[in-house]
Amino acid sequence: MAELQQEKGTQKAFGWAAKDSSGILSPFHFERRSNKDNDVTIKILYCGICHTDLSLAKNHNGFTLYPLVPGHEIVGIVTQVGTNVKKFKVGDRAGVGSMIGSCGDCDNCQDGMESYCPKMISTVTIFDVDGIKRQGGFSDFIVVDQHFAIHIPASLPLDGAAPLLCAGITVFSPMKYFGLDKPGMHLGVVGLGGLGHLAVKFAKAFGMRVSVISTSPAKKNEAIQVLKANTFVISHDSQQMQDASGTLDGIIDTVSSPHSVSPFLNLLKTGGKIILVGAPDLEKPVEVPVWPLLGRRQISGSMAGGIKETQEMMDFAAEHNITANVEVVPMDYVNNAMDRIEKGDVRYRFVIDIGKTLTIA
Amino acid sequence: MAELQQEKGTQKAFGWAAKDSSGILSPFHFERRSNKDNDVTIKILYCGICHTDLSLAKNHNGFTLYPLVPGHEIVGIVTQVGTNVKKFKVGDRAGVGSMIGSCGDCDNCQDGMESYCPKMISTVTIFDVDGIKRQGGFSDFIVVDQHFAIHIPASLPLDGAAPLLCAGITVFSPMKYFGLDKPGMHLGVVGLGGLGHLAVKFAKAFGMRVSVISTSPAKKNEAIQVLKANTFVISHDSQQMQDASGTLDGIIDTVSSPHSVSPFLNLLKTGGKIILVGAPDLEKPVEVPVWPLLGRRQISGSMAGGIKETQEMMDFAAEHNITANVEVVPMDYVNNAMDRIEKGDVRYRFVIDIGKTLTIA
Repeated sequence: MAELQQEKGTQKAFGWAAKDSSGILSPFHFERRSNKDNDVTIKILYCGICHTDLSLAKNHNGFTLYPLVPGHEIVGIVTQVGTNVKKFKVGDRAGVGSMIGSCGDCDNCQDGMESYCPKMISTVTIFDVDGIKRQGGFSDFIVVDQHFAIHIPASLPLDGAAPLLCAGITVFSPMKYFGLDKPGMHLGVVGLGGLGHLAVKFAKAFGMRVSVISTSPAKKNEAIQVLKANTFVISHDSQQMQDASGTLDGIIDTVSSPHSVSPFLNLLKTGGKIILVGAPDLEKPVEVPVWPLLGRRQISGSMAGGIKETQEMMDFAAEHNITANVEVVPMDYVNNAMDRIEKGDVRYRFVIDIGKTLTIA
Repeated sequence: MAELQQEKGTQKAFGWAAKDSSGILSPFHFERRSNKDNDVTIKILYCGICHTDLSLAKNHNGFTLYPLVPGHEIVGIVTQVGTNVKKFKVGDRAGVGSMIGSCGDCDNCQDGMESYCPKMISTVTIFDVDGIKRQGGFSDFIVVDQHFAIHIPASLPLDGAAPLLCAGITVFSPMKYFGLDKPGMHLGVVGLGGLGHLAVKFAKAFGMRVSVISTSPAKKNEAIQVLKANTFVISHDSQQMQDASGTLDGIIDTVSSPHSVSPFLNLLKTGGKIILVGAPDLEKPVEVPVWPLLGRRQISGSMAGGIKETQEMMDFAAEHNITANVEVVPMDYVNNAMDRIEKGDVRYRFVIDIGKTLTIA
């Protein structure tokens, strides 16, 4: 399932790229490989904008390789399949998330957890592992090994399904892995953004009780009335935090800015688990008090799930009518959208209407 | 199973107590309650010295209530039983670990995990929860609710069994709870002291591969040849640490002095777990880097196990001939022993021969 080291034959592609650390995106011509025997080509119709796209475009972590076409919440229609492809046929609805290759041989790959393969190839090149530069979904089409493409069930609208491929699986996977998916359990969701609002939806579909923990009182009504969270806790209200102490079986912490996890540890029952999925500043360690840990409380983190699990998540979403709440925007709005993401001004995910608004310049 | 709030009737007891933060112990007369209907009285024959005894005697955490008779690795012979006692009869070998009471009603108590009960009563009073001062096992006898006494199997020598009641269960319990007890798994044990050497023994009995991780090269031979660890890694040798990276399913970190866990996280496989059991400085948070956590690595902590599990541990120890390696010392050597514990000069646990050397002054 690994991508070939040597890629022969290319074709012209077009998208929007960041050219430097201003992060400003503009039209960009580039090359993609030709469709090989195991590949599918997907004409992109929608692509979500993840917080990571912003971090990469602006080089927040210092390792962005420019020019960079962001986008790893990609959905569209299969337009070409290689001779070995059995998983898809032309005309199928298909999606691509945050990865497009892995070694196929390591323990993680064998367990279907390609996202933890040491040789995992991300959809948009972050580290140059093999000299081949991959560009993302803010573009007209993508060519990908069939293994790394996901079926999008017919009942799901493509725009609302796109963010499931990163935001969705990033919260679904740890809920499954850490056993935070049982009816009657009480889950806390820290941060109500792209990831958080999907965590609430999955948790409710699992039959769990859900508390949203947020710094923004303004989000309370929507959390309770629209997303059907059971309670809303304002994280800087010490009385509310005290009242909630020791009540949660687990917490999905979706906050991507640096923050202390100490106050949240106190919300956990004995044996409770807090899972960091927001990838806060990787350079800065989190401070963890020892005393709450001694109650078998666990702190862990998680990335996107594997391909098999991503398909399971997508099928589960279809079964329970779960999609992201999205604001669909045209391609030329992308820089405004990036600005608004930086300010937290989106409920809850921007999705670019690539199919109708990407015009080859 | 909770201790009564009102205790009627007392009897004279004798032991050695610390009177102030010098931590120096000296002979001390005090009162214990009379043997009640659910109680057993145990004539103490041996008592282990745990690092916590040192911390309490010297008031390291600032909450010691003097005078303090330390000791919570207590073994001896039952000399009296209350009218309701069915679990023991006079003449039985019995032990008491770190707790002697709990509420009996909460989820943790119902699950047999009394050690996590919010109203758990420790063998030696740490926090005054009910106005009753409890004194530990550096003394002639103890009176305890039968539920909190443990049977010591006939095949186990009492001196080597004593440390199992705290050091033993403190490593055995998290290995069971976190699933670090499977044949073929690879366990790291950080720190080779009272807790660490027992972690190695239990892990070998579980059929695991064991790596001892230590700052002391001098411990290598004994770790490999006597304790049968598979490998020995010097934690400040960056090449050895690099070679061991990504190899461990779990780590039991027994170090009680403040230290960074970051280097150890890198030794874990994806999904590996590090469990802090040494109760490092509770006031000082540990710094945890986010990046390794995102590989589903978990950091957690654990305290002593519940009563049912402590009995299981004791029976497992008997079945596999596991005892602590002890240096048996007379009562009047206790202050020297404390000094040597502070310097790390003990392999691996001091046990006081109370039965033969405690002379009532």
